[in-house]
Amino acid sequence: MIQTPYLLFLGDAPDQLAAKVAQGIQDWRPDNVVGQLRLEGCKADVGAPDMTLEAAKAAGAKTLVIGVANRGGVISQKWKSVLLDALAMGYDLASGLHNLLRDEADLVEAARKHGRALHDVRVPGVEFPIANGVKRTGKRCLAVGTDCSVGKMYTALAMDKEMRARQMPATFRPTGQTGILVTGGGIPLDAVIADFMAGSVEWLTPDNDPDHWDLIEGQGSLFHVSYSGVTMALIHGGQPDALILSHEPTRDHMRGLPGYDLPSLEALRDLSLQLARVANPDVKVVGISVNTKDLSEDDALAYLADTEARMGLPTVDPFRQGAGRLVDALAAL
Amino acid sequence: MIQTPYLLFLGDAPDQLAAKVAQGIQDWRPDNVVGQLRLEGCKADVGAPDMTLEAAKAAGAKTLVIGVANRGGVISQKWKSVLLDALAMGYDLASGLHNLLRDEADLVEAARKHGRALHDVRVPGVEFPIANGVKRTGKRCLAVGTDCSVGKMYTALAMDKEMRARQMPATFRPTGQTGILVTGGGIPLDAVIADFMAGSVEWLTPDNDPDHWDLIEGQGSLFHVSYSGVTMALIHGGQPDALILSHEPTRDHMRGLPGYDLPSLEALRDLSLQLARVANPDVKVVGISVNTKDLSEDDALAYLADTEARMGLPTVDPFRQGAGRLVDALAAL
Repeated sequence: MIQTPYLLFLGDAPDQLAAKVAQGIQDWRPDNVVGQLRLEGCKADVGAPDMTLEAAKAAGAKTLVIGVANRGGVISQKWKSVLLDALAMGYDLASGLHNLLRDEADLVEAARKHGRALHDVRVPGVEFPIANGVKRTGKRCLAVGTDCSVGKMYTALAMDKEMRARQMPATFRPTGQTGILVTGGGIPLDAVIADFMAGSVEWLTPDNDPDHWDLIEGQGSLFHVSYSGVTMALIHGGQPDALILSHEPTRDHMRGLPGYDLPSLEALRDLSLQLARVANPDVKVVGISVNTKDLSEDDALAYLADTEARMGLPTVDPFRQGAGRLVDALAAL
Repeated sequence: MIQTPYLLFLGDAPDQLAAKVAQGIQDWRPDNVVGQLRLEGCKADVGAPDMTLEAAKAAGAKTLVIGVANRGGVISQKWKSVLLDALAMGYDLASGLHNLLRDEADLVEAARKHGRALHDVRVPGVEFPIANGVKRTGKRCLAVGTDCSVGKMYTALAMDKEMRARQMPATFRPTGQTGILVTGGGIPLDAVIADFMAGSVEWLTPDNDPDHWDLIEGQGSLFHVSYSGVTMALIHGGQPDALILSHEPTRDHMRGLPGYDLPSLEALRDLSLQLARVANPDVKVVGISVNTKDLSEDDALAYLADTEARMGLPTVDPFRQGAGRLVDALAAL
């Protein structure tokens, strides 16, 4: 686990989008954030108080999180002196960059000298078991998509937020880098060795109270030939009781795969249920989450209403409308 | 690629089963074998000529293959002097053991000193790409199983042997350790990082002549919750034109998963086709391969006949009957 609270390092982010990891942390777990640290020329602002390393340390920050992505995912030399100062002051560092903290000799040496931890959340930190398929107590919800990058993480985080507000027992279970940084723990599933994928998902979602929900972050798509094996491991390792179908209605082909059509929501429903029943015969599809960011308000509402009528399932865009109706569907199970 | 031909090292194998990797190489690629090397007390014999390191070297052997598995997959100290002598004499070493050659300091040092290679076939030796889903030329056949360990590798190797005998252009494409040692190359799919699984299968089965068949070694099962993600990557990365259904009829639950029933051949056929069509809409199921080793001859023949009548597909045990009818089915496509 990464120690919270965080100071969010935005570096010299050239625009707001470059700081989307920091923004995600600030949006979903403001309690994990003490402030933001911006270098000269930084064009991003996630809305947290600007702080120096010293001020944030005094306010209780434990970890400096690199919440900005460079082109190529490298650790900029401009950042190095801040990172080294942070280690000397007693901060741990956490990063989801492709360029690992542990591959930078000066950071490794400083972390060793000051007894601090370097968290590279792209790399699994645990030796996961092979999945054993044993039925676990507690309940689990997984979003599955017609394609990659259709809003599965957003859906799970929005449901988690709503369930916390209702004081329903729930835990968001991250399976990707951003999610891990948001909460401080999880599994970087796309970096796990093939034989241990499903086992890592079992490890992430252990036995729990009967009325507790794990909200498992989805990855990939059963219909995306590059990543379908990862999705399969989530379905069989996660043993979901509830599935949410996720979709983005404006794509003309699968992400990164010209010539591959998106499946219908019906095809996604039928295939996901069939596969999920292998691990949990009682699994149900409980709702649909649509990312309508590229539709006007009118078109979005019309699309949601049409889909709801066609599929007979509560259908929402959690960004426009919140995840309340999806949580209602979980609560009704 | 591992250099052939091999000298097969059987060490102090306590019984014949302990030398099954060596036996597989001798059975399927006798042309790759110069001889076998057995230590005092060895209880296995794969039927190759007994040879010293010197004699096998003179006969052209390039690589000493550890064809024996110890309990725990460790490299025995009893073996070390032979392995070190082999490196000094100019042999490469190859092993599928869990205990890696590269983790033994004395072997690493000797290999460096003598300019020899250490092949740990459990570990991927290539940085694989992410799958791009682009349709490739040539044809591909994949065996999919109702469960793990039902004879998928055996089926592919038996088809490969039959196609070679008929001078049909075909290549066995190994995806596991034994297969890699048999042929000298392949991918250890269960050890590939999740994001690159399907890409490694694309890499293994590149563009080829229009009438050439890749016979891809299957892994896991879509219905086995521990390994289904690996199977999925084979189906989507392999883009098979032909599927063979593989089954072992005497199991009362999925291997290692008490309480999990085996699927029917009909369920395997329908699910495999549905998933394979995502990558190749023209895929067909062409035959059924049944491992009848635990049935009497009469029971086996009756089971095969019943299954063939029920499924309407050529149904054979390639061990009892050869793979001729499965190859006929490929040829007829």
